[in-house]
Amino acid sequence: MPTLLILNGPNLNMLGTREPGIYGAETLKDIEARSTARAKALGLTIDFRQSNMEGELVTWIQQAAGKASGIILNAGAYTHTSVAIHDALRACGLPVIEVHLSNIYKREAFRHQSFVAPVATGSICGFGGHGYELAIEALATIIAATNKG
Amino acid sequence: MPTLLILNGPNLNMLGTREPGIYGAETLKDIEARSTARAKALGLTIDFRQSNMEGELVTWIQQAAGKASGIILNAGAYTHTSVAIHDALRACGLPVIEVHLSNIYKREAFRHQSFVAPVATGSICGFGGHGYELAIEALATIIAATNKG
Amino acid sequence: MPTLLILNGPNLNMLGTREPGIYGAETLKDIEARSTARAKALGLTIDFRQSNMEGELVTWIQQAAGKASGIILNAGAYTHTSVAIHDALRACGLPVIEVHLSNIYKREAFRHQSFVAPVATGSICGFGGHGYELAIEALATIIAATNKG
Amino acid sequence: MPTLLILNGPNLNMLGTREPGIYGAETLKDIEARSTARAKALGLTIDFRQSNMEGELVTWIQQAAGKASGIILNAGAYTHTSVAIHDALRACGLPVIEVHLSNIYKREAFRHQSFVAPVATGSICGFGGHGYELAIEALATIIAATNKG
Amino acid sequence: MPTLLILNGPNLNMLGTREPGIYGAETLKDIEARSTARAKALGLTIDFRQSNMEGELVTWIQQAAGKASGIILNAGAYTHTSVAIHDALRACGLPVIEVHLSNIYKREAFRHQSFVAPVATGSICGFGGHGYELAIEALATIIAATNKG
Amino acid sequence: MPTLLILNGPNLNMLGTREPGIYGAETLKDIEARSTARAKALGLTIDFRQSNMEGELVTWIQQAAGKASGIILNAGAYTHTSVAIHDALRACGLPVIEVHLSNIYKREAFRHQSFVAPVATGSICGFGGHGYELAIEALATIIAATNKG
Amino acid sequence: MPTLLILNGPNLNMLGTREPGIYGAETLKDIEARSTARAKALGLTIDFRQSNMEGELVTWIQQAAGKASGIILNAGAYTHTSVAIHDALRACGLPVIEVHLSNIYKREAFRHQSFVAPVATGSICGFGGHGYELAIEALATIIAATNKG
Amino acid sequence: MPTLLILNGPNLNMLGTREPGIYGAETLKDIEARSTARAKALGLTIDFRQSNMEGELVTWIQQAAGKASGIILNAGAYTHTSVAIHDALRACGLPVIEVHLSNIYKREAFRHQSFVAPVATGSICGFGGHGYELAIEALATIIAATNKG
Amino acid sequence: MPTLLILNGPNLNMLGTREPGIYGAETLKDIEARSTARAKALGLTIDFRQSNMEGELVTWIQQAAGKASGIILNAGAYTHTSVAIHDALRACGLPVIEVHLSNIYKREAFRHQSFVAPVATGSICGFGGHGYELAIEALATIIAATNKG
Amino acid sequence: MPTLLILNGPNLNMLGTREPGIYGAETLKDIEARSTARAKALGLTIDFRQSNMEGELVTWIQQAAGKASGIILNAGAYTHTSVAIHDALRACGLPVIEVHLSNIYKREAFRHQSFVAPVATGSICGFGGHGYELAIEALATIIAATNKG
Amino acid sequence: MPTLLILNGPNLNMLGTREPGIYGAETLKDIEARSTARAKALGLTIDFRQSNMEGELVTWIQQAAGKASGIILNAGAYTHTSVAIHDALRACGLPVIEVHLSNIYKREAFRHQSFVAPVATGSICGFGGHGYELAIEALATIIAATNKG
Amino acid sequence: MPTLLILNGPNLNMLGTREPGIYGAETLKDIEARSTARAKALGLTIDFRQSNMEGELVTWIQQAAGKASGIILNAGAYTHTSVAIHDALRACGLPVIEVHLSNIYKREAFRHQSFVAPVATGSICGFGGHGYELAIEALATIIAATNKG
Repeated sequence: MPTLLILNGPNLNMLGTREPGIYGAETLKDIEARSTARAKALGLTIDFRQSNMEGELVTWIQQAAGKASGIILNAGAYTHTSVAIHDALRACGLPVIEVHLSNIYKREAFRHQSFVAPVATGSICGFGGHGYELAIEALATIIAATNKG
Repeated sequence: MPTLLILNGPNLNMLGTREPGIYGAETLKDIEARSTARAKALGLTIDFRQSNMEGELVTWIQQAAGKASGIILNAGAYTHTSVAIHDALRACGLPVIEVHLSNIYKREAFRHQSFVAPVATGSICGFGGHGYELAIEALATIIAATNKG
Repeated sequence: MPTLLILNGPNLNMLGTREPGIYGAETLKDIEARSTARAKALGLTIDFRQSNMEGELVTWIQQAAGKASGIILNAGAYTHTSVAIHDALRACGLPVIEVHLSNIYKREAFRHQSFVAPVATGSICGFGGHGYELAIEALATIIAATNKG
Repeated sequence: MPTLLILNGPNLNMLGTREPGIYGAETLKDIEARSTARAKALGLTIDFRQSNMEGELVTWIQQAAGKASGIILNAGAYTHTSVAIHDALRACGLPVIEVHLSNIYKREAFRHQSFVAPVATGSICGFGGHGYELAIEALATIIAATNKG
Repeated sequence: MPTLLILNGPNLNMLGTREPGIYGAETLKDIEARSTARAKALGLTIDFRQSNMEGELVTWIQQAAGKASGIILNAGAYTHTSVAIHDALRACGLPVIEVHLSNIYKREAFRHQSFVAPVATGSICGFGGHGYELAIEALATIIAATNKG
Repeated sequence: MPTLLILNGPNLNMLGTREPGIYGAETLKDIEARSTARAKALGLTIDFRQSNMEGELVTWIQQAAGKASGIILNAGAYTHTSVAIHDALRACGLPVIEVHLSNIYKREAFRHQSFVAPVATGSICGFGGHGYELAIEALATIIAATNKG
Repeated sequence: MPTLLILNGPNLNMLGTREPGIYGAETLKDIEARSTARAKALGLTIDFRQSNMEGELVTWIQQAAGKASGIILNAGAYTHTSVAIHDALRACGLPVIEVHLSNIYKREAFRHQSFVAPVATGSICGFGGHGYELAIEALATIIAATNKG
Repeated sequence: MPTLLILNGPNLNMLGTREPGIYGAETLKDIEARSTARAKALGLTIDFRQSNMEGELVTWIQQAAGKASGIILNAGAYTHTSVAIHDALRACGLPVIEVHLSNIYKREAFRHQSFVAPVATGSICGFGGHGYELAIEALATIIAATNKG
Repeated sequence: MPTLLILNGPNLNMLGTREPGIYGAETLKDIEARSTARAKALGLTIDFRQSNMEGELVTWIQQAAGKASGIILNAGAYTHTSVAIHDALRACGLPVIEVHLSNIYKREAFRHQSFVAPVATGSICGFGGHGYELAIEALATIIAATNKG
Repeated sequence: MPTLLILNGPNLNMLGTREPGIYGAETLKDIEARSTARAKALGLTIDFRQSNMEGELVTWIQQAAGKASGIILNAGAYTHTSVAIHDALRACGLPVIEVHLSNIYKREAFRHQSFVAPVATGSICGFGGHGYELAIEALATIIAATNKG
Repeated sequence: MPTLLILNGPNLNMLGTREPGIYGAETLKDIEARSTARAKALGLTIDFRQSNMEGELVTWIQQAAGKASGIILNAGAYTHTSVAIHDALRACGLPVIEVHLSNIYKREAFRHQSFVAPVATGSICGFGGHGYELAIEALATIIAATNKG
Repeated sequence: MPTLLILNGPNLNMLGTREPGIYGAETLKDIEARSTARAKALGLTIDFRQSNMEGELVTWIQQAAGKASGIILNAGAYTHTSVAIHDALRACGLPVIEVHLSNIYKREAFRHQSFVAPVATGSICGFGGHGYELAIEALATIIAATNKG
């Protein structure tokens, strides 16, 4: 059963645990649960992680090769500043899908630049936790096509 | 049964009919077919259109109110230049999802700016025709949440 | 009796018919009515039109020569993107007045550039439908001065 | 009878007194006269002033509160450089109309930025002395609406 | 006998019919006539059209494949703003020559950017109606070389 | 007893007298009072002034030499535009502390540039009237260190 | 007794231990001591930390909620590059004060942008170790006002 | 005997009276003396003034017409910020020479833009007080040529 | 028989002699030959030169006056950097045609700026050696028109 | 025997172990080996490390003082984003040499800015693993000169 | 008798010989004559040269050391593009005065940048040939002061 | 025995002969001597030249093909301005190494752009004359690898 590596960047660990009136009640735990369910329905397992450390995210991406069939990455703030993650993704040789909970194009100008986007297969943003499920389906389709092709 | 308006901008009518080696063999007809199937499975119907005219796309967006429950828009080249479509989307009062077949962030700099993104609920790009299916699922979820909320 | 061509660009046809709480209850029909009345009081007739098509606005401006004594143009979103309208206005040989319902300088940066302004005699913005009346008076004054001069 | 404060910035005192072939024969005195007449016809009085000093214009705007029902401001060169006038206008709590004799968008790039525009209700430019009359009518309409509303 | 599609963008229909003192006395009709003559002398026919509509120009470019051996395009104002025409040209698979009547580098800065140039084989500008004849000769040479090659 | 010159720029005279709901109830008089008290506690006297005139602020800074031991400057809007104040501060040979009532980095982009900051010893912003007290303590410390040094 | 979290970013651990002729003889230890003293005098305790790791600073900010009454942050070099710290500060729900030892506006242009400033209550820079004391007083005042308010 | 108006902007009154080691020992008085002598030798009188007020400089320029034969202007800091002085110079109809004591191109980038230069006949900078003498000779030559021409 | 001066800038002497697979087999000698033939057919002679020295090109342009009836210039790399050639062309009083072998708009951004274009009558680029023939025809037409006019 | 600290930034641990066809077969281990050999030949020892963590690289640079005689740094992606490393290098008081395996000026624009370069003695890039040997020789020479000087 | 090296850049050899109606009747010969006379009156000789070659100007500047007491440079077009001349001037150790015949700040934007200005003692522009005389007087004064100092 | 062409650009001929206190006592002659020695030790000969003329450097690069096995280029000031040298290097088909004596990233912003870097194999800067030796070793290694490969 192929494994998808789902990585979450800085501050995503705080999701839903504080100010639920603003950020929604869904926690990262909840997103992991719905991701697990969706993956299972598509015959996949997931390896779901979060880190506030840029370097740790880089290391996890490096280690994915040979273990995971694809990466789903919500790099949070590092999306806009990390050339190191950009380089790790480009080198890893796996299909990569960029996810964001909110629509980053409605926010500050410094969030409109993504170092992840140019090295990802595709991007999904603005759909909250549901975006992870869409990314899992998208990645399942890409992996299936690659295996067939 | 709620209807989704799926709009396609300039040059998307040429999809798959020429240079299939480069752009893939899937035609806009094929994308309409898979969109219809996915929508049907989710209890929705679709109204699928294409135009090379900026003004016609504006008019279709204006007419959606009262007829459609949401809009999926692949504005093609007008994504990067049309304030008129931006204004029509903002005024229409419906959930909007932006779709692109290719990953626009791997292309020329002038394709990195989107006038659609800041007035859309979310964006999906880089998954070819499959992106339309993901957008339909996303829109179905949003409409269901709105009806519930 | 001299005729003024009053042209309205994309999305202005939606004025007042939806979300009156936000955009005001006045429709484009209402603005046409008050424009007709003001023009009549000044001994002028008006030819009042709206289009969502950039090219149709270009054509109307081209056809104004010989028929109209001046043009009042609310180009809406095309204000900020249309070199074609800019060129048509420059070539038409008539006095042109730019009108905007809202104060565009309180809005997004991309609305601060106008391709109409440098080829207009003058600009009036921020006064809602009343701005059309002010433009008619201004144009009447210019036409009278030209005839005298 | 409500009073309108009409303020004129640097160099407007020289209007018409020199090089009438270039700038027209109308003096600031003439503009005051036609402003007085138009205001009177609309049941208003005006307080018409000119200063070359940025700080004096700031002080006059500050003192308008409680005395005037609105401000018409042709800030001349300070339009493009004065944050102090911008701040005074924002704080004064009165409707403000920006006026320019010439079409500033046909001139040097440094005249295309206005610190007055984003804190004004609306702008009128390019109509010479007649623009003051249009501004008086616009302001009369706004004051009437405010009183009614 | 190979056919060349010669497309003219917005406002070119007004050529020569108004203000001949400024724009020259040559009409678009005249340019069509000299283009027909030059093409005939080179064993080619031409299909000569003009439109003010961006979308119609896109459609004509799309339809050229299989009918025309090459395209000569004077996109007028759309040269500087149309990504849609850029995309249509890139997809059409035909040699494309960009023509401008005037030297656009002597004009406003916004005319110095061309979305046509990077997808054209070559560009000819500044030679008035004669530029169309030069473009026909250039295109004839390219077509001959392609047939030989 | 050393004297601190505390200078306030344009519009600060309006503080608290209008719209207390927005700007707070504290007037410039109140700030002067708390500044006097804090200075007294630290064995200092203050000379507290306000002007709407850029040139008057320049003159006061010039005259400080020989009379004051340091300057606290809230230049208001002139912070962002006045090279003249910048030059006066650089020439005056006294320690200078920049103060702002609000956090200017949460406001418009044109308020992010300060001509005062590069010629000040330090800056304090965002603490309302309390910022003046902090500046007095900071300046007292700097003067004491200079006397010791 | 309320606790203030005082965080220091990269390279601040080296303060005073090397090149005292350049950076001054005061160590971070010394600053902690004077901060403790000032806090104690104001009835507060402090939790004083330093890290070279962006992610560790993010984590400490996240953990402050519920434990600390406010944050004083000298983010050092991360001030100019860290969107992750910006996001953590915005989410933490505590008053935040930005401190810098030197006047960053006298240094290289890349130090003039702060990702901390727009999410801080206020900023204090240029006063060396004394700036921490001023920040403690400022924060004490804000906490007292909040408790009262 | 023709009169030259020599105007000096903000902070030039401080010349030489403080920090002679840095700015030189020459005062503005000294420069006036050497200007008077040079003018006398060329059969001219001078009217030599200084102001820290932008508006006063504007007024003096306005009043020069009819009284002076030309203007020599060292606008100091207002060189880089004053559109009002730019406009006054353009309107005054006199030859204008820009002078600076120091070479402004060796200083900060914001001193490289001059609003005086584009409306001056010529500029002289970097020669200290001697530059005034050169400007007087240059202006004498221009006035003589004009009288002859 | 009128003479055309045809000037070639740096590196054009290497044309065709190395890497013919990349740059084509045509040498500058070949282009001179076909230029001579075309000119002859149009009743003209040519003076065909190449230099790697910016200053030598400037001198040749200066010397053209009185000897040549027009200039065809492929300035190579100096197109993008030489204000000196720009000035020489502007002063020479002859019609000038800019030629480039390749389409410079498909290349690096620094090749998109031309100092030749704004002082040329027209430009021809992207047609290899054939572009010189088109330029000769264009120049012949311009010279004939000038002689007639 | 003096020690050189050789630091490698993010993703350099992956060198040669994956996609040798693209990145070459040489691993970081191999580079360490050839660095050791070269250093030995020059009478030096090396301390060779790699980290994906920005903060860890900062700490290693801080700890070099007193232990190492110089630093060779290939900061990888952090070259382009890390002000923290810039500050650590500036403070460490050791000679620093910047190394890059590839020529970063042939790559994306965001790789053209280096925060390491302005605080390094010199830079060597584009020579693969051999660049480390050149850097060791360069550093040996600098250390020898310093010891002599 | 000290010698001044007076260097003239590209196209200045054409002065006055063509289009005297536009550029004036004065030739470079005439300017040399009036420069010689003025120098003689001040007890100086001049070495007056012109070149169209950037490299030759560089060489002449290099050779000035030991032979000339100062340089007057009208670098023409190379003013705006030549870093090589900038470097030669900086290295030569002589006082340098920049001269321009016209006011370059009234011309195209690319003429507003000068690579000569930041390495010159001072600049004189806009006074035609008379500017050379002013420069000679300025240089004489500087040399005298240096000899005295 | 393979030959390396070592080219030096403008002002490098002045090295060490003037102001040795600033630029060091090493002359270009000295650098040639140490380059010859190092080359000899590696079994290579060198052809060492200097020119102040951009065009001469272009010509030397063109002539290198067939004679030299590689080029070492210190283009001096032309590094930052010469597209002509860029083109010559790209066309020459030889390995190229860029050398600079000083660290250009510590100097003015206009020295941070290099037209040589993107067409060089690698760059070495900041090591004075020793950098030439490193470049010779690097080039020897590249030539050896090419011969082997």
